[in-house]
Amino acid sequence: MKKVLILGGGFGGAYTAMHLEKQLRKAKEPFEIAIVNRENYFVFQPMLAEVVGGSLGILDTINPLRKLLPKTNLYVREVDSIDIEQGKVFLAPKYSHAPYEVFFDHLVFALGTVTDFRGMSGIHEHALPFKNLADSIAIRNQIIDVLEAAANETRPKLKEKLLTFVVGGGGFSGTEVVAEVNDLVRKQAKKYPSIDPKQIKVYLIHSKDRLMDKEMPESLGSYAGKLLAKRGVEIRFNTHLKTATPEEAVLDTGERIPCKTVISTVPSSPNPLIEPLPLNLQKGKVVTDAGMQVDGHSNLWALGDCAATPNLEEGGLCPPTAQFAIRQAKVLAHNIAASLSVGKKKEFRFKALGMMGALGHQSAVAELFGKFKFSGLLAWMMWRAIYWAKLPGVDRKVKVALSWMLDTMIPIEAVQIKMAPTQGIAQLHFEPDEIIFHEGDIGDYLYIIVDGEVEVFSGKGKEEKTIAKLGKGEYFGEMALLNQKSRLATVRCLTAVDVLALKKSDFGVLISNFQELRKDFEKTQETRRREID
Amino acid sequence: MKKVLILGGGFGGAYTAMHLEKQLRKAKEPFEIAIVNRENYFVFQPMLAEVVGGSLGILDTINPLRKLLPKTNLYVREVDSIDIEQGKVFLAPKYSHAPYEVFFDHLVFALGTVTDFRGMSGIHEHALPFKNLADSIAIRNQIIDVLEAAANETRPKLKEKLLTFVVGGGGFSGTEVVAEVNDLVRKQAKKYPSIDPKQIKVYLIHSKDRLMDKEMPESLGSYAGKLLAKRGVEIRFNTHLKTATPEEAVLDTGERIPCKTVISTVPSSPNPLIEPLPLNLQKGKVVTDAGMQVDGHSNLWALGDCAATPNLEEGGLCPPTAQFAIRQAKVLAHNIAASLSVGKKKEFRFKALGMMGALGHQSAVAELFGKFKFSGLLAWMMWRAIYWAKLPGVDRKVKVALSWMLDTMIPIEAVQIKMAPTQGIAQLHFEPDEIIFHEGDIGDYLYIIVDGEVEVFSGKGKEEKTIAKLGKGEYFGEMALLNQKSRLATVRCLTAVDVLALKKSDFGVLISNFQELRKDFEKTQETRRREID
Repeated sequence: MKKVLILGGGFGGAYTAMHLEKQLRKAKEPFEIAIVNRENYFVFQPMLAEVVGGSLGILDTINPLRKLLPKTNLYVREVDSIDIEQGKVFLAPKYSHAPYEVFFDHLVFALGTVTDFRGMSGIHEHALPFKNLADSIAIRNQIIDVLEAAANETRPKLKEKLLTFVVGGGGFSGTEVVAEVNDLVRKQAKKYPSIDPKQIKVYLIHSKDRLMDKEMPESLGSYAGKLLAKRGVEIRFNTHLKTATPEEAVLDTGERIPCKTVISTVPSSPNPLIEPLPLNLQKGKVVTDAGMQVDGHSNLWALGDCAATPNLEEGGLCPPTAQFAIRQAKVLAHNIAASLSVGKKKEFRFKALGMMGALGHQSAVAELFGKFKFSGLLAWMMWRAIYWAKLPGVDRKVKVALSWMLDTMIPIEAVQIKMAPTQGIAQLHFEPDEIIFHEGDIGDYLYIIVDGEVEVFSGKGKEEKTIAKLGKGEYFGEMALLNQKSRLATVRCLTAVDVLALKKSDFGVLISNFQELRKDFEKTQETRRREID
Repeated sequence: MKKVLILGGGFGGAYTAMHLEKQLRKAKEPFEIAIVNRENYFVFQPMLAEVVGGSLGILDTINPLRKLLPKTNLYVREVDSIDIEQGKVFLAPKYSHAPYEVFFDHLVFALGTVTDFRGMSGIHEHALPFKNLADSIAIRNQIIDVLEAAANETRPKLKEKLLTFVVGGGGFSGTEVVAEVNDLVRKQAKKYPSIDPKQIKVYLIHSKDRLMDKEMPESLGSYAGKLLAKRGVEIRFNTHLKTATPEEAVLDTGERIPCKTVISTVPSSPNPLIEPLPLNLQKGKVVTDAGMQVDGHSNLWALGDCAATPNLEEGGLCPPTAQFAIRQAKVLAHNIAASLSVGKKKEFRFKALGMMGALGHQSAVAELFGKFKFSGLLAWMMWRAIYWAKLPGVDRKVKVALSWMLDTMIPIEAVQIKMAPTQGIAQLHFEPDEIIFHEGDIGDYLYIIVDGEVEVFSGKGKEEKTIAKLGKGEYFGEMALLNQKSRLATVRCLTAVDVLALKKSDFGVLISNFQELRKDFEKTQETRRREID
């Protein structure tokens, strides 16, 4: 059976699978559908800002992919790399260190974009992104956390910082999130007798002279700006968030805003998995024809935010919106089914219906069919009605409606979802004879022996050749990390063993900053390499 | 105004504050009530197992403390240490490194017990505790995670491990959690065509010869064991969970159970904050009289699981149950109010009403008034009715009732609550002139300079005395960590600075295992100490 593999379970990926399942029913030759996604659920992105604000519960905006896609095989994994020539995708290992491959006949890129703060000094370290569900929860947690800290803070400077919130980026998501943050903070603060509402400051930093300048007509952008200003958001136009520290946000005008909470919604970068591929790219996006077929590859497809697909109706490229991704998915599923049997391919043609942006607190802006403009309560009612209708699955519709109803009576509690903090340096225990890693495994950790003895060997069975025995204070696994290769040997425990495991990324950070450590590792490696050869 | 400070917001602490607020109304001299809790909410512990199973939502079992206790001052912090003689409590710093003190006239210990796996090699590293809300979420996440991994696993040995679940401890919470885990796994597995229900194994390891031997009469304990066995739980009696590794659970009979999920409900240890105090302790619990007053201290009080309070009705000590803590709280609040004015103190007298244990899937066991025994559906209905009635706040009652109703129609989705992983080694960015830490701050991090230059100095204003200038590759902050003292100097950025920050605990782990690193740090420290002197 031919296998169609979809990378990504957002609007593009999930809806492609949904339509492929329909195609499957009428297909002459059955084919297999598989999807890879980091989570086992689909997130209804447009409602994420409401999770921050709390009019929706954490799980209201999500749909389990297995339920949505009963005939699709789901891999809940990270994609490690893609090998187009061999027709396979490497997924990140889980519960084992062995590489994990999935083969495909047709591959669909639906990877969207990523928030990429790398290279943005300060933002990278101290700004909260707003992109996925985990981000929404993190932002909500942070707001509750600073309010609690502010409630008992007697040092006025620190209290001021705790009650100041800075959002970078006044596009769609920046505007939506600042609106929700502002509503939440001002509503919650009333519950704290020691917090004076006048001490609360919410800033929105935008590089242009009006909000949502790319997405909305001028009048609606200005309306949004005025409305937010009236509700207490201070907007800084024509400036960027330059950097952030644990104590402040710094703008490129030189203004320094003392604060403990910085949210950044810019920029969306192309998914880094795509960049190294031998494909025709345009600003990091996969170039396709109007049938979503990748330039020069009959079995590769791309759609949504990670694709550069011509917009036949309006010229240019299709905009990176859910509206387009959902419609592209239907045409794409048809085209894949057609190329699997003998059908005729279609071209994607769609004229945007309009745009809507929520502004919190029962208001929104909307433009429909490029001519009708709405704002305020009416636009907000349209926003809710239209997105509610678009929610996939009856379950979701009921849950969201229920949350909206309850919100007016029993609002969602302002509490943090705390998880036990993940340990920087993991401690692991092994019993005698257990294998810590196998030859050929992916080199993802460095190990330091705290107690016990291990044996390092290569080969299997009779071919087994002992390389070294290591004890307390010695380390192993550094070779695969330093050389980015897979493990050259197997490590087995001779006794009960306690080890520290340092993640590849943490190891990299340490080694590149600790001179002594690097020298020491390099010396050991030299000795060991000679032993293997 | 006199200040009553309560440490801990569980049943003992929250209900003490609640009753103190009532006492406040009739008090001649008003007093201040304050409570310290790690979270800003109270968790209704008895329903936590249902969060694992998913018949209740994550936030259904919690009540914001501010709402519950409108007249109480809430500190959402960790307690660092307690100074009885000076009458103050040190709270962990947050958003600053400066120490944070709270003074008290009366102090109430309501710290409960903690899950303490220290010294339990293997369990400490690889077993999930089941004690608080974060634990419930973590267990639920883990179950969903292994099911997803198992669904696509082709290596039979790994698949077997992924589908095996081991719970250590067959007391109340162990029995409740294994019942919910078993129900959840078997229900969810049906949604995965590639998982054969026969491959699922759920084990309960108990040290005695019947379940809940301490809490329930023999007949009900045996009933629970038989019921769980019928539903597929394999119970190992008369043995302990000896250790665990990433690959298996090991029992002290020598049996090794290959698995990826180990949950341990034993043991509950006294809160480590209490141990160093100059108080009369009994097995780590604070000894009080029948009025909850701490032995020999007229302004110290203790109740609930962290107190050794005589049980006047039945002899011995009061058992560590919510039932007792709630009733103790009322008497304790009265006694504190009495000692603040001139009232007469009361003694705590209460005869347990009975015990109930849920067994999942519409069944439970219950014993009331020491003579009536119930099991199965009837006991389950009693369980729900009684605990529902005990839920504080109308909001909670509505939400829980709603969740229970919805559970039969639209069950809570089996999705993971994922948070962005906290980084092992934090990267921080500072701008010129910013202070990284102040003299006198708590030494909680070691810093390594990645880029930029800092100045280390002691004294303030004109007294300022530069100690050193440090640049790329150099580190600072190690002295307070090595000596467990507060900072001896202030560090200010001369340029924009990027640093790595290593948590005290991670630093400790590294230093005690890397010979070279320790030597190097000790050498630097020696030089710097001379510079300061």
